[in-house]
Amino acid sequence: MNTLGNKLKVTIFGQSHAPAIGCVVDGLPAGFAPDMDRVSAFMSRRAPGQNTWSTPRKERDTPEILSGLVEGRTCGAPVSMVIRNADQRSKDYSGLKRTPRPSHADYTAIIKYGNDYDVRGGGQFSGRLTAPLCFAGALAIQLLEQRDILIAAHISEAGGVSDISPDFARVSREELAALLRKPFPVFSDEAGVRMRQAVEAARMDCDSVGGVIRCFAVGLPAGIGEPMFGGVENRLAGALFGIPGVRGVSFGTGFTAAGMRGSEHNDPFVMADGRVSAMTNHAGGVLGGITSGLPLVVNIAVKPTASIAREQNTVDLQTRTDATLVIHGRHDPCIVPRAVPVAEAVTALTVLDMLLEE
Amino acid sequence: MNTLGNKLKVTIFGQSHAPAIGCVVDGLPAGFAPDMDRVSAFMSRRAPGQNTWSTPRKERDTPEILSGLVEGRTCGAPVSMVIRNADQRSKDYSGLKRTPRPSHADYTAIIKYGNDYDVRGGGQFSGRLTAPLCFAGALAIQLLEQRDILIAAHISEAGGVSDISPDFARVSREELAALLRKPFPVFSDEAGVRMRQAVEAARMDCDSVGGVIRCFAVGLPAGIGEPMFGGVENRLAGALFGIPGVRGVSFGTGFTAAGMRGSEHNDPFVMADGRVSAMTNHAGGVLGGITSGLPLVVNIAVKPTASIAREQNTVDLQTRTDATLVIHGRHDPCIVPRAVPVAEAVTALTVLDMLLEE
Amino acid sequence: MNTLGNKLKVTIFGQSHAPAIGCVVDGLPAGFAPDMDRVSAFMSRRAPGQNTWSTPRKERDTPEILSGLVEGRTCGAPVSMVIRNADQRSKDYSGLKRTPRPSHADYTAIIKYGNDYDVRGGGQFSGRLTAPLCFAGALAIQLLEQRDILIAAHISEAGGVSDISPDFARVSREELAALLRKPFPVFSDEAGVRMRQAVEAARMDCDSVGGVIRCFAVGLPAGIGEPMFGGVENRLAGALFGIPGVRGVSFGTGFTAAGMRGSEHNDPFVMADGRVSAMTNHAGGVLGGITSGLPLVVNIAVKPTASIAREQNTVDLQTRTDATLVIHGRHDPCIVPRAVPVAEAVTALTVLDMLLEE
Amino acid sequence: MNTLGNKLKVTIFGQSHAPAIGCVVDGLPAGFAPDMDRVSAFMSRRAPGQNTWSTPRKERDTPEILSGLVEGRTCGAPVSMVIRNADQRSKDYSGLKRTPRPSHADYTAIIKYGNDYDVRGGGQFSGRLTAPLCFAGALAIQLLEQRDILIAAHISEAGGVSDISPDFARVSREELAALLRKPFPVFSDEAGVRMRQAVEAARMDCDSVGGVIRCFAVGLPAGIGEPMFGGVENRLAGALFGIPGVRGVSFGTGFTAAGMRGSEHNDPFVMADGRVSAMTNHAGGVLGGITSGLPLVVNIAVKPTASIAREQNTVDLQTRTDATLVIHGRHDPCIVPRAVPVAEAVTALTVLDMLLEE
Repeated sequence: MNTLGNKLKVTIFGQSHAPAIGCVVDGLPAGFAPDMDRVSAFMSRRAPGQNTWSTPRKERDTPEILSGLVEGRTCGAPVSMVIRNADQRSKDYSGLKRTPRPSHADYTAIIKYGNDYDVRGGGQFSGRLTAPLCFAGALAIQLLEQRDILIAAHISEAGGVSDISPDFARVSREELAALLRKPFPVFSDEAGVRMRQAVEAARMDCDSVGGVIRCFAVGLPAGIGEPMFGGVENRLAGALFGIPGVRGVSFGTGFTAAGMRGSEHNDPFVMADGRVSAMTNHAGGVLGGITSGLPLVVNIAVKPTASIAREQNTVDLQTRTDATLVIHGRHDPCIVPRAVPVAEAVTALTVLDMLLEE
Repeated sequence: MNTLGNKLKVTIFGQSHAPAIGCVVDGLPAGFAPDMDRVSAFMSRRAPGQNTWSTPRKERDTPEILSGLVEGRTCGAPVSMVIRNADQRSKDYSGLKRTPRPSHADYTAIIKYGNDYDVRGGGQFSGRLTAPLCFAGALAIQLLEQRDILIAAHISEAGGVSDISPDFARVSREELAALLRKPFPVFSDEAGVRMRQAVEAARMDCDSVGGVIRCFAVGLPAGIGEPMFGGVENRLAGALFGIPGVRGVSFGTGFTAAGMRGSEHNDPFVMADGRVSAMTNHAGGVLGGITSGLPLVVNIAVKPTASIAREQNTVDLQTRTDATLVIHGRHDPCIVPRAVPVAEAVTALTVLDMLLEE
Repeated sequence: MNTLGNKLKVTIFGQSHAPAIGCVVDGLPAGFAPDMDRVSAFMSRRAPGQNTWSTPRKERDTPEILSGLVEGRTCGAPVSMVIRNADQRSKDYSGLKRTPRPSHADYTAIIKYGNDYDVRGGGQFSGRLTAPLCFAGALAIQLLEQRDILIAAHISEAGGVSDISPDFARVSREELAALLRKPFPVFSDEAGVRMRQAVEAARMDCDSVGGVIRCFAVGLPAGIGEPMFGGVENRLAGALFGIPGVRGVSFGTGFTAAGMRGSEHNDPFVMADGRVSAMTNHAGGVLGGITSGLPLVVNIAVKPTASIAREQNTVDLQTRTDATLVIHGRHDPCIVPRAVPVAEAVTALTVLDMLLEE
Repeated sequence: MNTLGNKLKVTIFGQSHAPAIGCVVDGLPAGFAPDMDRVSAFMSRRAPGQNTWSTPRKERDTPEILSGLVEGRTCGAPVSMVIRNADQRSKDYSGLKRTPRPSHADYTAIIKYGNDYDVRGGGQFSGRLTAPLCFAGALAIQLLEQRDILIAAHISEAGGVSDISPDFARVSREELAALLRKPFPVFSDEAGVRMRQAVEAARMDCDSVGGVIRCFAVGLPAGIGEPMFGGVENRLAGALFGIPGVRGVSFGTGFTAAGMRGSEHNDPFVMADGRVSAMTNHAGGVLGGITSGLPLVVNIAVKPTASIAREQNTVDLQTRTDATLVIHGRHDPCIVPRAVPVAEAVTALTVLDMLLEE
C-alpha cells in the first residue's frame, strides 16, 4: 500500500498533521555516501512557500536520519528518516467529514476508513507525503548518476500553455542539466512566462490549473524490464499514479500515437556512431516493456488543484442533503511545478529498482 | 513478470509459435460454474480472421482445461488452460534477428535474451498471448456480474475518428450492455463506419492506424483501493500496460484534465436517489486511489500496428550497418477492435483481484 | 527484506547504535484504539535488565508514535513508531570487523555489505531490533483478542530442562492466560526453577544455553491458509526465522513426528460438543497448510547465546591468519525468556495478516 | 499460493485426478539447454511404483514441454510443462467428503472450499503435485551446477533408524555425488538396510513411519541472503513447508542446538587453505540469514504417511456423529525416500532464486 519497489523498497508514513512524516528506504547498496546538501536542495524544489505560484505554508522540511547511515555512508541497514510537522495549526477540520471537498479524497477515505479517517490537511493523502518520496528519490538520483543515468523533467504543459519539446531520440544530458538548474523547468523560458501568467490568472479568478510533466531518463542501458506485467511502463505507471493529482501516464508520443499512422509512428533503427539508435523515438525508449537504450520519455498528466477559493457544491454526509462548501486557507493554484521533482523522484526510484533487480 | 495479481493470480505462458499458449488462474473462489459458451464467445471477440479489419490468420482458439474444474465447477485448485498453436508455419524467421522490425520488441528482446530469443511471430511478445488473458478475464467478468458489476469498453478513437462519449457520471448498464453486443463497439455507429473507413484506407496505403479504448466498470462499490501505490489507478495502469501496443493509460478526463481549470474539473457531490453521487465524473470514479462508487472510466491509448507492408529502415545487427526491411504476411491494420476485449479482461481481472483483497 | 506481511505489513528499521530503531505498521484497520499500557507491558517482557537472566543494559524503550493514530485511534494511515537509542556508548567496535565473533553475523555481514557494515552492537542484526517487532505484535495481539484469538508461548525447554506439555488438542484459554501472567512462562514452575538454575550455572561458567519456545494460538477459525507455498506453516516459518537465534521451526509434534508411526501420529476426528474436533493434535492445528480449528502449536528452537565470556578462536580478516577473541560486556546467558514475547509477536502478526487476507 | 519464488517463479497446477498436472517456470536465463535425460532421471527418483517401499500406482510421468524452449534451449519466455494423469480410475471418492481421513487435508479443504473441493486422490494436496516441482527443480539443479553448486540430500532418519552424519563443516562434493547415485540415499548402507526393514515392518503392521531428510548445498558463495525476513532460512523454510507431510524445518544442528551450550555450539572461524572457514558448522552455513560459504545444511521432518490400512476413527460430516473409516488402496508406508528429490528440488529452486536476486 504505502511501499514502493521490489529490491529497493520505500515505505512512506505520516499524515499532514501527524507529529511527523517520513520514510524507510530499504535495499540501498552499502557504502554509498549521499551528498546531503544535494538531497536538501532537491527536496527544496518541492517545498512550498517559495514563490508566488505555491502555497505560503512554511515547513521546516529538515529530514532527520534515524538509521542506515554511519558516518555519512550507508551500512546495509534501511535508511530511515523523519520530518517533524512544524506547522500544525489545530484548527477545526471536522466540518470536512460532513461536507467532503469535491475532487479530494475526503469522501472516499471516509467510506474506506470511517469516521476515524484523519481529515486534517488531507491526512495521508496530503501532497505533503511527497516530501519523504523526494528524499528517497534524491538518494536514487545520486546512485543513478554513478551509473551515468540522468533524470530530469520539464513542465510540458500548464494552464493551457505548452512548452517546446526536444527531440525524443536525441535529448542531451546538457539540455537536461540546464533544465535541472531552472526554478521553473521549461525548455522555452518564454513559454514558462506564459504558463506562470496563466497560473496567476487562475489564482486571481479563485481558480486553479493543471498541466503535464514530461520526465526523461538518459543513459539507461538497453535490456532493462520484463515482458507483459513487468515492463518498464507497467512499473513506472504503477508508481507514478501514487503522486497525488496524477490522472494519466503515457510514454513517448503517448495518446498522440493513437492518431498517428504506423508509417509515421514507427521508429526506424539506424546506426549512429557505431551504436544501434533510431531516427525517432516515439516509443519513448521502451519496446515490449524493455528499454531500447534511447531516452526514456514518460508523460504525466496532473489535474488542476482541487482546492479552489470559490464556493462549491457538495453534500452533507450527516443530513444527507445537498450543501455548499468554501475551502479556506491558501493553496497552490497549480501544483505542477512542485510535482516536477516528485515525478523525477518516483521515476528514479523505479528505474533504480529495476536496475538492481537485473 | 508473466504473473498478474495478488489474491487472484494469472500466469500467462507460451510464444506465438511454441506448441501451445495458456494460463494458470489461481485464487478463484471454489464453487463457481463458469458459462463456457460465454467464455468462448468472449474469446472469439479477440480472435483474428473474422472480418476485414483483422489479420486472416486462422487460429483454433479452443481452450483445453487441464485442472481446477470438476464437473464444470471450480474446486479451489488453480484453473489451468492451454491452447494449441495450430497455425505454426515453419517459415524462416531468422532474418528478424539480423534486421529487427521497427517498433517491435525484436531488438530489445535480443538485447535481453540474446540470440536464443524466440523471434518467430513475435515470440512471447505476440498479441496472441492475449488469448489466455481473455480466457482468464472472461471468468473474472462472470464473477463480477455476480456482484452486479458490469465491464464494457468502446473504441473512443480510431484512425483519427472519435466516438461520442457518454456522460461519465451516468453511463448506464443498458448502454454498456448494448456496447457488448456490437461487433464493432462504439456508441455512434456512424462514427464506427468512419473508423472502419479510416482503417481500410490505411490498409490500402500499406499502413496502419492506432486508437483509444475507453473501458467502463459500473456497479463497483465505493471504498475499493488503497492510498499511494495501492490505488485503483496504480493497479490498473500496472496491468493494462501489459497489453501489447498500449502507450498511455488515463482515468476520467485523463490528459484533457491538464488543460482544465479546477472549477471545471472538480466534480461537485450531489445527493441522487438518497445516495451520494456527483454532478460530473471527470475523476473517472477514483479519488485518492479509492473508488467513489461512480463509474470507473479508464482510457487506453493504442499505437498504430507496427507491422506495415512498406519497406522500412532498420539496421543489420550482424554487419552493424543500416539496412531495409519488408515485413511479409498480413497483419491487422488496426489492432484496436481486437484489443477491446483484452482491455475489458485486464480491467476485470484487476478489479476482481482488488475486491477479493478487501 | 525488512518488511513482513501482505495485507498487514510491518517494516522494521534501525541498528543497535543508530540514533533510533522503529517500525511502520501498514494495514491496520481504522478505528482501532490500542491499549498503550498493555503495549508497554508487552514490550517490557522483552526488555533487558530486568532480572538476573538477562543483560543489564538499560534501555528506555519508550515508543514514540509518529503517525497513524489520532486521539488514540488508528485512522487508516500507517502507524509509525521510533525508539531512541539511549545507551549508545561510543566504545570502539572496529576490532569486530577484523576478528568476527563466532556464530554472530559479523562475518557474513562484512562479506555482504563490506567494510561499511555497522558492526556496533550487532548493527541491524541486534536482538534490539525485536523491540519494534514487539510493538507491532502487541497491536496485533489486541486485534486478535477482538476476534477471540489468544496467543501465548511457554519455554518448553531451556538449558536441557523440559517444561511439561499441555494436551495440544485441549490447551485452554485459562492455561494460556496464566502463562501470560508469569514472568518466566512455563507450565511447571518447578521446571522453571531448574531452567533458571541451568542458565545461572552456564553464566557462572562464562557460557550460555539455548532452548525451545512453544507458541499456541487458540480460537483460530478453521479454514485459514492456502495450499502449497501459502500454508500457515510456510508463512509462520518464513516469519519466525526472522527472530535472531532461531534454528528450527516445527508444528505440533514436529521433529518427534519423524519417529512415530502413522497409527500413533494420526489425529482421529471426533465430535465434541457438536463440533468437529480431534482426539489428539499432533498436527498442531494445521492440515494441508490450512487451520483445522484446533489449537495452533508451533515450536521454535533457539540456539545458545553466541556471545560468551570465554576466549574463542576466530580469524583476523586483515592479516588473514587465525586469531583469538574475547567478547567484553555482559550478555544474556540465555535469550530464550526474552524471545518468548517476540515469538508471540511474530505469530500474532502472521496470523492476523492471514486473517485479514481471507 | 501455488507460486514459489521472486525472480525465478514456479507456478504449480493440477489435481491428482484432473486431466493433467504441470508447472510454469518463469525467470530462467535464456540460452540454457537443459539435459532432458537428466531431468527425467531426476523425476523418476520421485515416481512411485519402483520398489517395495513405495505405492504401486504406475504413472507415466512424461513431461510435455509446451513453451519456453526452442530447439532445446530456453528463449526467455516461461517454460511450461504438463503431465497427463494416466491413472485416473473413476472410483467413488464422495465418501471422503463425509468421513474425512485423519491427518489428511480433506477436512480443512472442505471447510475452505466447500463441497466443491476435489477430494479425489487428495486433489491439489496430493503428493503427485510434487512431480512438476521436481521438473522445475531439476532445471534449477543444472543451473546451479554451472555455478559449481551441488545439492544432495540423505535420509538422516526413517522408522526410528538414524543414518550417520557427515561433518557439516567438511561434507564433500564426492560424498554428495555418491549419495545422488544411490537408489536409497544414506551415508551408511547398513543403516539404510535397517531403515527399509523398519518401513517393511510398518507395512506388515498396516502402519507407516516418518523420517527426516537432511539436504546439503555445497559451493554456495558467502553473502547470499538478506537480514530479518529475507534470510536464507526464512526463504527455505517458507518453501519447504510446501512439501506435503513436512512438519519441521531446521538448519545445521537445528533443535539439538537448543540443548547445547554456547561454547559447544559456536563455530570458531579458522583459516583453511587461505580462505575463511570454521572448525564446526553447527549453524548449517547461515549466519544472520546470510550464507557463510560453508555447506548449507537443512533438516526436514516428515510425518508418517497418514494413509494407513487400519480402521480409524473419524466423524461423519453429514450426520455430525462419530464414525470409522478404512482407507483402501495401497500407499507408501514411508514417503521419505520419494520426498528426498522433492526436498532437493525445492532447495535448489530457492537457492537459485536467491542467487538470481543478488
